Amino acid sequence: MSRELEDVSTPARLAQAGEGIGRDELALATRNHGLPLEALRYDVTPPGLHYVLTHYDIPYVPEDTSWALTMGGHVHRPLRWGMDDLRAFPAVTTRVTMECAGNGRARLEPRPVSQPWLVEAVGTADWTGVPLRVLLAEAGIEDGAVDVVFTGADHGVERGVEQDYQRALPLGVAAGEEPEILVAYAMNGAPLPPQHGRPLRLIVPGWYGMAHVKWLHEITVTATPFTGFQQAVAYRIRQEPEEAGEPVTAIAPRALVIPPGFPDFMSRARVVRPGPVSLEGRAWSGTAPVESVEITTDDGRTRHETDLDGTTHRWGWTRWRFEWTAEPGEHHLSARATDADGNTQPLSQPWNRGGFANNLVQRIPVLCLTSDGTPHR
Amino acid sequence: MSRELEDVSTPARLAQAGEGIGRDELALATRNHGLPLEALRYDVTPPGLHYVLTHYDIPYVPEDTSWALTMGGHVHRPLRWGMDDLRAFPAVTTRVTMECAGNGRARLEPRPVSQPWLVEAVGTADWTGVPLRVLLAEAGIEDGAVDVVFTGADHGVERGVEQDYQRALPLGVAAGEEPEILVAYAMNGAPLPPQHGRPLRLIVPGWYGMAHVKWLHEITVTATPFTGFQQAVAYRIRQEPEEAGEPVTAIAPRALVIPPGFPDFMSRARVVRPGPVSLEGRAWSGTAPVESVEITTDDGRTRHETDLDGTTHRWGWTRWRFEWTAEPGEHHLSARATDADGNTQPLSQPWNRGGFANNLVQRIPVLCLTSDGTPHR
Repeated sequence: MSRELEDVSTPARLAQAGEGIGRDELALATRNHGLPLEALRYDVTPPGLHYVLTHYDIPYVPEDTSWALTMGGHVHRPLRWGMDDLRAFPAVTTRVTMECAGNGRARLEPRPVSQPWLVEAVGTADWTGVPLRVLLAEAGIEDGAVDVVFTGADHGVERGVEQDYQRALPLGVAAGEEPEILVAYAMNGAPLPPQHGRPLRLIVPGWYGMAHVKWLHEITVTATPFTGFQQAVAYRIRQEPEEAGEPVTAIAPRALVIPPGFPDFMSRARVVRPGPVSLEGRAWSGTAPVESVEITTDDGRTRHETDLDGTTHRWGWTRWRFEWTAEPGEHHLSARATDADGNTQPLSQPWNRGGFANNLVQRIPVLCLTSDGTPHR
Repeated sequence: MSRELEDVSTPARLAQAGEGIGRDELALATRNHGLPLEALRYDVTPPGLHYVLTHYDIPYVPEDTSWALTMGGHVHRPLRWGMDDLRAFPAVTTRVTMECAGNGRARLEPRPVSQPWLVEAVGTADWTGVPLRVLLAEAGIEDGAVDVVFTGADHGVERGVEQDYQRALPLGVAAGEEPEILVAYAMNGAPLPPQHGRPLRLIVPGWYGMAHVKWLHEITVTATPFTGFQQAVAYRIRQEPEEAGEPVTAIAPRALVIPPGFPDFMSRARVVRPGPVSLEGRAWSGTAPVESVEITTDDGRTRHETDLDGTTHRWGWTRWRFEWTAEPGEHHLSARATDADGNTQPLSQPWNRGGFANNLVQRIPVLCLTSDGTPHR
């Protein structure tokens, strides 16, 4: 750790009471982006609408011909694959809903100062690649291995620590079949876009985004637990800075509403006209399949079960629907997902210092006009 | 205008001194996004990295088979084209650098409260479509026509006014050849992505983004000047709210630097090591071709001409390069574009109430470390 770097790379902090979003948070918000919520309509998110978070710069990889993935460490046969080698393996495609671990952070009080997501850091894609367990089997794991470390080509400094982005999975997860981890080279049938890891990334179905290492070029099997920055310092659930904390892993259940009606440009408030309004949205959970989505249109006074679409995609989101009859006045909508393990969304906000894995129910104010006239310009 | 809508759709305002970015500005920043500046490396911006600003929701148009473009008003033959009809015209492809009129707004003091761009609301694409002048000639313009009004399918409310997004061009511009306006159905050789206007948008080379109407479905030739919201109320350069103001039109010159070295995650500060650093970037101007880009690496004490790549794309950006030898310490870089008409970038910030057409030079702090060691993890 460099003394000099500490000048530009300061410790994590919490915003003061009433402190607006700062220039640093805004600089992250203008380059990263969420899913515009109306894009929840798409079963598979078009790539430019899928949420993106990059810690450092997006590496520039215009051609993938010289890209190589190495596997080393605690293995019998260190290996190296070019992109054509990887594409020669039988390909697996999995539909995966991915969410940033920091989704919801900007709604917390006090607010952890970092990427300021409100609720939109999500997206669903069909990812194609080679199962990681196949690559691990080729290399042969030595006895005593505990972690598998993934290194991306993205390089930067964070909280004073210069680093390539690195994350690990426990060997049991890395070599597992449920979920089956992918080393992916295609998104929705096309080569990965630069911001999604071109040419190669990890896909860990059901886990928050920090696990899906982008611009992946090195896999190392270790005989000791990995203690890199993104594993041991960042992405831990803590109340106090000195705690070891719990690691962030599987995605907690969440439901989002496709915003009904039309928006105001600035406030993003929603406006509908009286009468039938089809409410639809998506729900997902990394911990177990979504079992129910409940909706309220009167700020919680009454709650209704919604209709779920059956889906054969365990790791993708589920669509839900509810027919509402809007009456003039102000309304507050909320949808709440529950999964088969009984995990559900809190109705009041839990808090942790990193702002991770927050799945507070979304609350959408809707103004229903008194006029039932047709829209005018 | 509805009294009720005024509750959710309030007048434009300026932020108070020291007022941080608000929840409403953040909601815009998380759904819209700029060009991550390292993506200035690409001659043509991959679609998911091109800046996006949508006033309302992105219309959902999964299939374009029923999409139609109508032309009416002050014409001899009102016409209607389906997508196949439009694709049957001889296709024209133009490389265009597009920039949001509000780029730079969030750096203003006082800050107009709207989409809070810092400096990154830009992108370059190859747009393919039919020249608008060809379509206008098919319909035949009647004597006395003055404006051509373009209506998109995006619907919302803004400053109390419910509206479909509409903008007009003077007939002379709409029917002109320099620039040649396109009704575009493809971006970088593929159908338009949803957020860029699927299936059809206007492309007005050299003009700020507000003119490039997305989700275009209606063209109306008028015999009186168009006074719709986005023409007469928004997108005007004013010092006081009651002024008529000047319309926002062609893009003022701007140069941006590809950020050198590597970033800090939170501050986005740039870090380099001592020695040669190739500085590169892009410059563009809608008013005339870029003629020079000057750079300073010492906060303006000395200035140097950079090397420009010749480009045959009048409406696309130009690449510039400069070889810098970094020495340990703090530096401030700025690049400044000047076009053939003598238009250049201001060194101190002009201001207007909408935060439009701000092209203040970018100022990039860079920390050069004392160590010349190779990067470590």
